[in-house]
Amino acid sequence: MTPVEYSKDGNTFRDSIASVPLLAPKWRERAVARLNSLTKPLGSLGRLEEIATRLVAIREEERPRCSKKVIFTLAADHGVTEEGVSAYPKAVTSQMVLNFLSGGAAINVLSRHCGIEVVVVDIGVDGEMGEVAGLVRAKVCRGTRNMAREPAMNEAELNSALGIGIELAAMAEKQGHTLIGTGEMGIGNTTAASAITSALTGRPVAQVTGRGAGLDEPGLGRKIAVIERALEVNRPDPSDPLDLLRKVGGLEIAGLTGLIIGAASRRIPVVFDGFISTAAAAIACSLEPKVRQFLFAGHRSTEPGHDALLEFIGETPLLDLQMRLGEGTGAALAMTLIEAAAKLFDEMATFSSAGVSEAST
Amino acid sequence: MTPVEYSKDGNTFRDSIASVPLLAPKWRERAVARLNSLTKPLGSLGRLEEIATRLVAIREEERPRCSKKVIFTLAADHGVTEEGVSAYPKAVTSQMVLNFLSGGAAINVLSRHCGIEVVVVDIGVDGEMGEVAGLVRAKVCRGTRNMAREPAMNEAELNSALGIGIELAAMAEKQGHTLIGTGEMGIGNTTAASAITSALTGRPVAQVTGRGAGLDEPGLGRKIAVIERALEVNRPDPSDPLDLLRKVGGLEIAGLTGLIIGAASRRIPVVFDGFISTAAAAIACSLEPKVRQFLFAGHRSTEPGHDALLEFIGETPLLDLQMRLGEGTGAALAMTLIEAAAKLFDEMATFSSAGVSEAST
Repeated sequence: MTPVEYSKDGNTFRDSIASVPLLAPKWRERAVARLNSLTKPLGSLGRLEEIATRLVAIREEERPRCSKKVIFTLAADHGVTEEGVSAYPKAVTSQMVLNFLSGGAAINVLSRHCGIEVVVVDIGVDGEMGEVAGLVRAKVCRGTRNMAREPAMNEAELNSALGIGIELAAMAEKQGHTLIGTGEMGIGNTTAASAITSALTGRPVAQVTGRGAGLDEPGLGRKIAVIERALEVNRPDPSDPLDLLRKVGGLEIAGLTGLIIGAASRRIPVVFDGFISTAAAAIACSLEPKVRQFLFAGHRSTEPGHDALLEFIGETPLLDLQMRLGEGTGAALAMTLIEAAAKLFDEMATFSSAGVSEAST
Repeated sequence: MTPVEYSKDGNTFRDSIASVPLLAPKWRERAVARLNSLTKPLGSLGRLEEIATRLVAIREEERPRCSKKVIFTLAADHGVTEEGVSAYPKAVTSQMVLNFLSGGAAINVLSRHCGIEVVVVDIGVDGEMGEVAGLVRAKVCRGTRNMAREPAMNEAELNSALGIGIELAAMAEKQGHTLIGTGEMGIGNTTAASAITSALTGRPVAQVTGRGAGLDEPGLGRKIAVIERALEVNRPDPSDPLDLLRKVGGLEIAGLTGLIIGAASRRIPVVFDGFISTAAAAIACSLEPKVRQFLFAGHRSTEPGHDALLEFIGETPLLDLQMRLGEGTGAALAMTLIEAAAKLFDEMATFSSAGVSEAST
């Protein structure tokens, strides 16, 4: 097992994993009792009722709120792009970070619409971002190594990235956020996510690899071959999620893994976004299955590997809008549904308060 | 064909049907050109891109907005409840209208969350609502007749209800609403919707009839038998949607049919809600297939007949949250997704404005 001890806030990654709690059934029961008293047919709010129940159990509060919401969009580069696995040049990672910071990207528009704060983190962009307002500077290194030739990260780099994720969760807690979304940006990162998916689920690379931001047919063939080579060269141990993450993952994926575990250890629910975020969620769940209780799947991506990861985690996404953009865009829209569930639970009248007759059965 | 001429605003129902426009391809093309210039991989916003494209073509505007949104929740009673087809007593219809007006129902919470105005309309509640603030009084009569014995409405009643729907669309236009949602409340109205579904799609009653607000097994069997009897007694003509609507429909369903057609004739997009609203949408589309261009399916209900109607209309719902509440609740959540699509289209940076490199292919 890879040793992980790094974390600036003094809370080690292992400590965070060890402190992920088990949800108490009594809070779920309390939530169900209230739901059944609200002016609607029993169970008729469907998944929104499940969500509200889970929020109550996660937060251990009578009326959990999700009004303070944050999405962490972690950006990093990938050495494997030198193999020609993306339709876009590597420079787009840093260009998009600037776009996030000036508010022009999809994640900005959706977060404004849904009342979510976006925190953009440079966890490993290959380039100097300069003095730009609003950027969290947490660059571990200038992108991963080319996983088709060697491990993507060394142990120190992996540990730094995981520790940064833990710190972001601590920051969210300190600022009073009660719902966290995951987002990412990194040219080449569907290559890493597909490698993780294949190694974790045992499915053939070709089955879990897609066109990412828009590869053509020859590009897709090349990408599959590169991932197969990366798995051969690195031989990640599927029973050791951190070994796998280090060898064929990415800095943003490692950061999100830390963020998810840190959030779970602090009882903050997390909405994970598309394919890359789900790879981080799958690794977090492999490390500690109790993490799953704190996770909501935001949306179903059209990337072919996404379903395999969702099945591995065991969550059904809230949305299926054929999106495949990342950044946290699917999470943003799902977060407003989760906030809606919390408000229904809090604000609806009961049969007795509204003087509405109950069912005769 | 049933003659329909009523409408207080001077615009007859037939005029409205005749004035539903065909969308011009050039507006779609313009929308696609802009979408492809925005800082995201081509097509990566999935259905949100389709939505934005359709909004542009419906509104014939460079940047259509959906900030002024309204849901019309039409309430009416159903004579067929005397056959014991609902788990709830009929009085719940008027009790829930009062709950809507005091802001304690699910539709109120969701509409507040999504920034939507809710207009509650008494189009046929069996009872005097008294002087309550905020209620649109448009009672055609005190509920439908028992369709298991005779037609649910006579022609004058049907025409009044359709005309009220047309007037509501006119009211929405006058108030500057650019996105309309449909909602309803009526104990017994899944019975009417199932009857419509069976008659319209030719499927057996048992296949398209569910538990509504929560019938037990014997109740479900009774409901199926009652609907079969209603179809036998009335013999609605499936090729004449208004005949069908009159004989086995409901006042709120007729009102929503008028609303949908009125909105389409005014180029206002409509998000239809669950099973009952979809029955109205299906009738509207049968009367004039061009109406479909203006419709978005809000969500997939767990009522078994809903899929048959969605297939009949040819729309895939935006949400599938296992809801079955009505009121407009699924439409409310879908409307915020549609507004998000409009904002993405309007607010996102382009590759050139943000200085982001495009794909190499």
